[in-house]
Amino acid sequence: MNQTAPISEFEQRRRSLAQELTPLPVDALLVSFLANVRYLTGYMGSNGLLLLSSSGEATFFTDPRYRIAAAAEVSCRVKVSSGPILPDVVALIARKKFRRIGFEKSRLGYEQYEFLRSKLPVRCVLEPVAGLVEKQRMVKSASEIELIRRSVDANSKAFEAALRTIRPGKSREADLAAEIDYRMRKLGAERPAFETIVASGPRSAMVHAQPSERILSKNELVLIDMGATLKGYSSDMTRVVHIGRPSSRIKRIYGAVLEAQMAAIEAVRPGVTAAHIDREARRPLKRKGLEKAFVHSTGHGLGLEIHEPPRLGKQDKTRLEEGMAITIEPGAYLEGFGGIRIEDVVVVTRTGCEILTGTSKELREL
Amino acid sequence: MNQTAPISEFEQRRRSLAQELTPLPVDALLVSFLANVRYLTGYMGSNGLLLLSSSGEATFFTDPRYRIAAAAEVSCRVKVSSGPILPDVVALIARKKFRRIGFEKSRLGYEQYEFLRSKLPVRCVLEPVAGLVEKQRMVKSASEIELIRRSVDANSKAFEAALRTIRPGKSREADLAAEIDYRMRKLGAERPAFETIVASGPRSAMVHAQPSERILSKNELVLIDMGATLKGYSSDMTRVVHIGRPSSRIKRIYGAVLEAQMAAIEAVRPGVTAAHIDREARRPLKRKGLEKAFVHSTGHGLGLEIHEPPRLGKQDKTRLEEGMAITIEPGAYLEGFGGIRIEDVVVVTRTGCEILTGTSKELREL
Repeated sequence: MNQTAPISEFEQRRRSLAQELTPLPVDALLVSFLANVRYLTGYMGSNGLLLLSSSGEATFFTDPRYRIAAAAEVSCRVKVSSGPILPDVVALIARKKFRRIGFEKSRLGYEQYEFLRSKLPVRCVLEPVAGLVEKQRMVKSASEIELIRRSVDANSKAFEAALRTIRPGKSREADLAAEIDYRMRKLGAERPAFETIVASGPRSAMVHAQPSERILSKNELVLIDMGATLKGYSSDMTRVVHIGRPSSRIKRIYGAVLEAQMAAIEAVRPGVTAAHIDREARRPLKRKGLEKAFVHSTGHGLGLEIHEPPRLGKQDKTRLEEGMAITIEPGAYLEGFGGIRIEDVVVVTRTGCEILTGTSKELREL
Repeated sequence: MNQTAPISEFEQRRRSLAQELTPLPVDALLVSFLANVRYLTGYMGSNGLLLLSSSGEATFFTDPRYRIAAAAEVSCRVKVSSGPILPDVVALIARKKFRRIGFEKSRLGYEQYEFLRSKLPVRCVLEPVAGLVEKQRMVKSASEIELIRRSVDANSKAFEAALRTIRPGKSREADLAAEIDYRMRKLGAERPAFETIVASGPRSAMVHAQPSERILSKNELVLIDMGATLKGYSSDMTRVVHIGRPSSRIKRIYGAVLEAQMAAIEAVRPGVTAAHIDREARRPLKRKGLEKAFVHSTGHGLGLEIHEPPRLGKQDKTRLEEGMAITIEPGAYLEGFGGIRIEDVVVVTRTGCEILTGTSKELREL
């Protein structure tokens, strides 16, 4: 390799991960979770493994369907297996005489684990490790933030375009969800980052409502939670719109949730814990007697996955760092009445945060 | 329970599975794969486990997010865990004094397995089992075939509607894919059953092409492989259309693939093996010197998953049975030139098969 050529972002990531391996009792890490494999190699297909040694040597394994794609995408040595992949991984481990193999314990299947355990050389031990690559992925590079920004922008544009298709009394929740997904795609997304939520009237009180045949009707709330995957990177936004003039009760709850959302955003800066942001979101809701109506955590990291660490909840002591991309999404849900949630994507900056989501947070009347 | 009430289809399935357990060294089976859980309980969410004893006793476990949904969907005892689910599974196993617990070895994660291994009572052993529910799912009931039929019909309608939106020289592959997915949704599908393939010109030779920015142009092939998920059940269809008049070479290859597809369909009936159908598809291609251009297997089962057993390939000795739903999809791929694939869904009947896919198989010119 030409020593003067700039090393790729993927190679930088592998080098930095290899350094994390050095203090651990492992000679090499087998990366099996596809989002982690993509992060470390650039591979975008559905069947691939990476073996990374603590000295930084990397081999990527895939099957013949991905020969062309891997040659184009992957920035390290590629081994295309003619049959199943794992026997070739075992062969390389044996040849390299690695003795301690780390594996992603929450990502490997029992069957793969058993195969490795029974086929690896007898002196070789398997060491469960957790969250190494996920930890590395928490802090985004400038190029990753740029992709998240593009994903967020496409998502916001799709929201505006889809809203214009609502025909109150005619459109079903499922119709609006289909419009949203269609607009995202036309704006460059590969796919929705998760199943788009459109929940109207009392259904908006269900946090995980799937779009139904329910008609969007006059004098009702519509809660829309949507995200795009664009060049692999996720966006995530929730807005509530109202068909007709909202009641004062709805305005009051909306105002409380918006206050909670802004308070949480205000608190985001390097050094504070994820749990601190969650507390800051709950405070205004408590003042309004709505603390029990906020039944989930305040947000989550996002990137190659729609839900990544950190989790902005009571238990997570992770300290925010510059470059983390997180959602801020408090809500209030009143069974039989309805639910409000307001969600933006923000990036932690040196002194606070930048809100990537440009969509207005006024309670919009259709 | 009222003894005279008809038992539900889900309970019938659990009873029949419990009978399969009797000869095995297991007192209960822990079903963790969601498609299997759905098949046995009706549950449609994303976090649920079923413990089924060999005497037919069933308990379904989920978390509070799915309390309402589980109450509505699930036809057996439901336990809603306030924290993680597995500790409650362990507690029930201990209380029931089950000693041998079967688990789905290709579906359980290493971490879940380790948790069970370390937390179950010392006398309790874990027994890996494979493919039990999958085998049961191969033969579809009348109500399942009806849902597959609806999914196939919605898929065919979406194809026709999306074709009309093609503007040669303007539409990109990704635009057509977005139109296809949108039309499916408007026709009642929850989502595409897999990432819709639209591959034009020489890209059609890539079996797993993702839709790209490439413009659909005059005098080129467009290969479209699409499927819907409707009320949980999959459809799958491939058609090739030509923009402008096809060359005689294209017509010749198309004719050979169509002949292969019809020969395979002709061979479908109860008692023949999956491998036999695959051989019958290859024969006409061999006569035309195209056997090496057909680089995948002839088809697969489909239902709650888009790819289920059997696999219509060289190795699969499964004998077809009345009620199996399978795809028949031979193809021919010539690198640098293009690819042809023709795919229908068929259901095995008492004397042969019924082709569910109604879309014409003539090489259509746009």
